[in-house]
Amino acid sequence: MKIHNFSSGPAILPQSVLNEAAEGVKNLNGEGLSVLEISHRSKAFVAILEEAVELVYELLNIPRDTYEVLFLTGGASSQFFMAPMNLLAEDQMAGYLDTGAWSAKAIKEAKAFGETTVVASSKEDNYNHIPTGYDIPAGLRYLHVTSNNTIFGTQMHSWPETDAPLVADMSSDIFSRELPIDKFGLIYAGAQKNMGPAGTTLVIVRKDLLGQTNRHIPTMLDYQTHIAKNSSFNTPPVFPIYVSMLTMRWIKEQGGVKAMEKINAEKAQLLYDEIDNNPRFKGTVKNQESRSLMNVTFVPTMEEDKQKFFAACEAAGISTINGHRSVGGFRASIYNAMPKESVELLVKVMREF
Amino acid sequence: MKIHNFSSGPAILPQSVLNEAAEGVKNLNGEGLSVLEISHRSKAFVAILEEAVELVYELLNIPRDTYEVLFLTGGASSQFFMAPMNLLAEDQMAGYLDTGAWSAKAIKEAKAFGETTVVASSKEDNYNHIPTGYDIPAGLRYLHVTSNNTIFGTQMHSWPETDAPLVADMSSDIFSRELPIDKFGLIYAGAQKNMGPAGTTLVIVRKDLLGQTNRHIPTMLDYQTHIAKNSSFNTPPVFPIYVSMLTMRWIKEQGGVKAMEKINAEKAQLLYDEIDNNPRFKGTVKNQESRSLMNVTFVPTMEEDKQKFFAACEAAGISTINGHRSVGGFRASIYNAMPKESVELLVKVMREF
Repeated sequence: MKIHNFSSGPAILPQSVLNEAAEGVKNLNGEGLSVLEISHRSKAFVAILEEAVELVYELLNIPRDTYEVLFLTGGASSQFFMAPMNLLAEDQMAGYLDTGAWSAKAIKEAKAFGETTVVASSKEDNYNHIPTGYDIPAGLRYLHVTSNNTIFGTQMHSWPETDAPLVADMSSDIFSRELPIDKFGLIYAGAQKNMGPAGTTLVIVRKDLLGQTNRHIPTMLDYQTHIAKNSSFNTPPVFPIYVSMLTMRWIKEQGGVKAMEKINAEKAQLLYDEIDNNPRFKGTVKNQESRSLMNVTFVPTMEEDKQKFFAACEAAGISTINGHRSVGGFRASIYNAMPKESVELLVKVMREF
Repeated sequence: MKIHNFSSGPAILPQSVLNEAAEGVKNLNGEGLSVLEISHRSKAFVAILEEAVELVYELLNIPRDTYEVLFLTGGASSQFFMAPMNLLAEDQMAGYLDTGAWSAKAIKEAKAFGETTVVASSKEDNYNHIPTGYDIPAGLRYLHVTSNNTIFGTQMHSWPETDAPLVADMSSDIFSRELPIDKFGLIYAGAQKNMGPAGTTLVIVRKDLLGQTNRHIPTMLDYQTHIAKNSSFNTPPVFPIYVSMLTMRWIKEQGGVKAMEKINAEKAQLLYDEIDNNPRFKGTVKNQESRSLMNVTFVPTMEEDKQKFFAACEAAGISTINGHRSVGGFRASIYNAMPKESVELLVKVMREF
């Protein structure tokens, strides 16, 4: 039976990418070696890394003279401290929009490096919406946002109006839609939701923001180190970068980020329509404008339906549909690689329930 | 034609491990999902991580109540600063044995966190031997060593006599031999030479040494964070850990580290005998006692032989035999996974040369 993988991350990857990755583990490019055993200085890997960087520039339409594209490690969790460590001097202030558990962690890590201010928070409502109508102080070094909140099923569908560059954790919606790139000073994303397997972190940084904090930064934590060495100051995570590159190639073949955005909206619409029309379920997000197109969170109207619905999903081959413990109920993660057919199957199971 | 991969790292892995890893990318444990798309909280991955940790304890005979085993990211290069950040208070002194380029980088990063003293160095001889007969001051917080120097083909075959715990970068010889584990306070190793593919870093730490520096440590850089969460505070590098686990399983099947040590000595002996007996080649390491069993460095007696020997190797399917630019000539990296047959082939090519 085919398994339909609704995991929130690490998450589904396109089947063609998995097939090609498996072949690369056996014999990369038919050259007789595994992608796991080649030097990171080999022609084959240098070409992979260059193509990966090129695809990021291309897919997100990033100006090449202004921004640098890096593949690092340590996950978004490491960017929570690396961003302020590299960007925020002790006497500067950074703004944070508090939209979920990951935003809160980012705020906690930043406090060690400079002043922080939370411009708005939906914490009191268990993060069930994206705040609106808040004021942003002038003079912020940057404003940090989490573009999509995996746990709470919310997503920013517009960007704050501010002169400060945005610093954005896009781990769960990178490459899912077009971006007004010039609003951003730094974008980071753990690969394992919408870009590849766990083990690499994409960083896109406006390079004029760097080198101004006047603090000691360990070599490996300084974005400038990795810029100078094209993400190969030390041995990069070869295989996670390889599979991320294959996934970006796939996105390009599908028509790029614009095409992804269209199909993602269609997939999400199917599911939200069913949630809104089916009396046995209800959505957890407070308003339509805050709903995520990546992670669709919903609960049963009657608590006793919960285990029954899990059983119905399991019988249909639908995997990892459970919600995060802080929201409960169900969560369908429908990233780029999720086929529309799998979403239709889930809707069918809900309808027949 | 079979390719014999003598790369210094990322490096050769056992063929059976590559086969099983490729299968895992397609369908892990026959359960219908790829190892690249399963949650790091899934039963399947938790079992992989637990087995990996268990194998480290078992293979190196590590006391379970004293040491913690972690799988992190960022490579040994990140341990260069994480070790002093976690272990060395500002008013304490750490000793460093300077045996190569990686030692020198470790020393550079440590200086930001406390006092450092270089107890001995072979830098003036282009690191062509492991220093001996040096004094180690009393009262060091730790003594840092690089157990094997990939670039220079040297390896420590005895451990310094000191009351201070050793901190050891074992990236290129972990699991290649038995260790007197109680001499070590911290052992770290990037996976990509003797343990798995690039993308994870093994850390073995004596836990009583932690939590004493009285400095702010970002959450992700604190060993205690990862100890408390069993290396899953954030999403760990799932696939690199999976393949490392498979490689450690393979080591255990071969008879464990003791058996590896024996076969590694045999493989190295074959090659060093040929270097010493063949007038067309000479070794670069100054004395027998400093020679590495992992990376065998040698140069042609006549410079004009260099390109000819590369050509002879290429014709025989011998790949990546070039020496590092700072030593020149040739380097045969013959890690655990290198079959004796491939070493015999290299010796044959040298003899027929």
